Amino acid sequence: MNYESFFRAQLDGLRREGRYRVFADIERQAGSFPRAIRHDAGRAREVTVWCSNDYLGMGQHPKVLAAMHAALDRYGAGAGGTRNISGTNHEHVLLERDLADLHGTESALLFNSGYMSNWATLSTLASRMPGCVIVSDEMNHASMIEGMRHSRAERRLFRHNDVADLRRVLAELPPDAPKLVAFESVYSMDGDIAPIAAICDVADEFGAMTYCDEVHATGLYGARGGGITERDGVAHRVTVIEGTLAKAFGVIGGYIAGSTAMCDFVRSFASGFIFSTALPPAVAAGARAAINHLKQSSAEREGLQERARTLRRRLDAIQVPHLDNPSHIVPVMVYDPVQCKAISDILLDHYGVYVQPINYPTVPRGTERLRITPGPVHSDADMDHLVASLEAVWSQFSLRRAA
Amino acid sequence: MNYESFFRAQLDGLRREGRYRVFADIERQAGSFPRAIRHDAGRAREVTVWCSNDYLGMGQHPKVLAAMHAALDRYGAGAGGTRNISGTNHEHVLLERDLADLHGTESALLFNSGYMSNWATLSTLASRMPGCVIVSDEMNHASMIEGMRHSRAERRLFRHNDVADLRRVLAELPPDAPKLVAFESVYSMDGDIAPIAAICDVADEFGAMTYCDEVHATGLYGARGGGITERDGVAHRVTVIEGTLAKAFGVIGGYIAGSTAMCDFVRSFASGFIFSTALPPAVAAGARAAINHLKQSSAEREGLQERARTLRRRLDAIQVPHLDNPSHIVPVMVYDPVQCKAISDILLDHYGVYVQPINYPTVPRGTERLRITPGPVHSDADMDHLVASLEAVWSQFSLRRAA
Ligand SMILES: Cc1ncc(COP(=O)(O)O)c(C=O)c1O
Ligand SMILES: Cc1ncc(COP(=O)(O)O)c(C=O)c1O
Repeated sequence: MNYESFFRAQLDGLRREGRYRVFADIERQAGSFPRAIRHDAGRAREVTVWCSNDYLGMGQHPKVLAAMHAALDRYGAGAGGTRNISGTNHEHVLLERDLADLHGTESALLFNSGYMSNWATLSTLASRMPGCVIVSDEMNHASMIEGMRHSRAERRLFRHNDVADLRRVLAELPPDAPKLVAFESVYSMDGDIAPIAAICDVADEFGAMTYCDEVHATGLYGARGGGITERDGVAHRVTVIEGTLAKAFGVIGGYIAGSTAMCDFVRSFASGFIFSTALPPAVAAGARAAINHLKQSSAEREGLQERARTLRRRLDAIQVPHLDNPSHIVPVMVYDPVQCKAISDILLDHYGVYVQPINYPTVPRGTERLRITPGPVHSDADMDHLVASLEAVWSQFSLRRAA
Repeated sequence: MNYESFFRAQLDGLRREGRYRVFADIERQAGSFPRAIRHDAGRAREVTVWCSNDYLGMGQHPKVLAAMHAALDRYGAGAGGTRNISGTNHEHVLLERDLADLHGTESALLFNSGYMSNWATLSTLASRMPGCVIVSDEMNHASMIEGMRHSRAERRLFRHNDVADLRRVLAELPPDAPKLVAFESVYSMDGDIAPIAAICDVADEFGAMTYCDEVHATGLYGARGGGITERDGVAHRVTVIEGTLAKAFGVIGGYIAGSTAMCDFVRSFASGFIFSTALPPAVAAGARAAINHLKQSSAEREGLQERARTLRRRLDAIQVPHLDNPSHIVPVMVYDPVQCKAISDILLDHYGVYVQPINYPTVPRGTERLRITPGPVHSDADMDHLVASLEAVWSQFSLRRAA
């Protein structure tokens, strides 16, 4: 077996399918984000980022940076150990309290990423509860899918955001089997939002736990940034709320929030929590600053919604097609993988507009798109330039227009 | 099904077995580490940490902190996206180059933790290569075990560090099946070291790839901190070198190093790499400062070895039993879980000495221990105090003495 040629052949396959990824090498400019310097073939040029998940620009917020600087000076760079072996810093303890407060839950538990919180929590819950069946929205994120897969528990899919189908699946399961209904609140690629109250109604009826990934919603929805579960007043009905510190909160890390017994159970049994060095105290401090700022301030959330509304209106004016949805995510539809990559390259190289193309397998074939994430950091002039650039490229390529 | 009572019953089970973990809540003091402030029931007291994996104190090194401060000001708090979607910062690119240079490999690939690098790489390699069999040292770390498990590839164990047994297992496998021999260099709980050259000889003979976890060795061994693979001159023979940025390098993150095709293959197919926000640029900058400092400076490594030798000599003098091994890790043996926890509590509460007890399942039952990690940050006075405290506790509890 020649391993090197195996690897190369697999990579060639990706290239042939147009799925080989080349990462844009950028330097975000703190203080003037969405501006970034892009490195390409020895050249460095300024671009405007339109595809970041630092949705509110909290990654450059003075309070966040000040908290991180102070924590660095006080505690040093890293945690120095796993949570159990000298790695629990007081900032972790305080952050877990702040997260529980954010969601109005008894407890919260930190992980090193949102990916890890999904993977570790779902695999631990489903594998440790004998006979547990997971009932999963068919559009769930890769990290949730891998966690369910790792648990080896039986898994049933229900149609995306379809409560009647969820009921059908639950009704087919043995009444006394432990059940876990797993879904997201805001789906990141289409920007649609789950009917959480209705999902909880059906889950309650069949005695199922509920697991809600709020990765694209915490900080962004609800009066204090508690996510869609806060906005809809259903946080107390969801067994596990999962979120990230890497998107609206601008730093890195993941967490779950829920009852003390549930969080303690995951803390005590999840390999991915136990056997990994804890987040740097400075990261925890930065996340706390972002969370606590966004509990008090709605200006960023309002700015986000206004920018999304404005972009949609302006896209409509030039008939550039975008997927309508009730969230802040604006998927501009291209419907072709090769064109999607090509126009993204042109936007970046010729117009200094950075929007990553989203192709299969992240989205279904034929629904290729530019996933645009406008936010309060984008000025009117940024918006003018984006819209003019899209108009030019749409004309140049004779791309499909909206009706 | 009452989920809450299920969780509580499981936690009660842990308590009955004496395995329920209570985290010590501390504040590392940058600049005077191993000193830390411990929070306990509303009180805050100073302790000396003797169980951190920030082995060289790089977490408080001025160069590391300066690099992180500068990067925070320049790039902001977080990466703002996954590596593919606006999250590749120039610091990540430079760090991957520095890591490849550290190990003399063509390429390297960053992950958010050492846990994730093990889990994602092993599961990707073994699941994507049809018919792959993993041959695993029986003492491998949880993150490796979960990665192998996730791959669903066939897995065979060989006896710990036993090359003859590895040969026996490999000889039983179909000659043309892809094979992956997975092991660690320095084993963290016993501190013993794998015979890497001999493992590579056997692997070569049977056409197997090799995967070496150097988490407890990079930065600590080899003229430039390249780990045991550098010390033994075998880095070029190992297919995948895996390491962490969270131990000797004092920050957080994980990585693999190896051929360009291998790294690119994992980059392109590993879910845990693709679908998770990248490390903050400031973390990458701090890791680079630590790595590049330790490439030039051996003083920290020498200090580490000297402190470990000194502690062993002093433990011998008071006949406190410890596991002899060729590494920097000093496992002081207690052989009983209840006593191990009790003396660790007394050391912490009465002597201000923080050493976490290591009980089952982290180590086999009957081999419970205090895993002490002396380092260049520990002064002679710290050592005097540790040894006097151990002597007092050993007498108080009439613990087993060394011959
Ligand atoms: C729905 C969803 N869940 C979880 C994650 C993972 O979160 P993190 O980036 O913090 O690992 C992501 C994206 O990265 C996501 O889109
Ligand atoms: C042998 C080994 N591999 C991997 C890891 C995980 O590394 P990290 O802490 O960076 O997640 C650890 C410990 O944490 C370890 O001891």
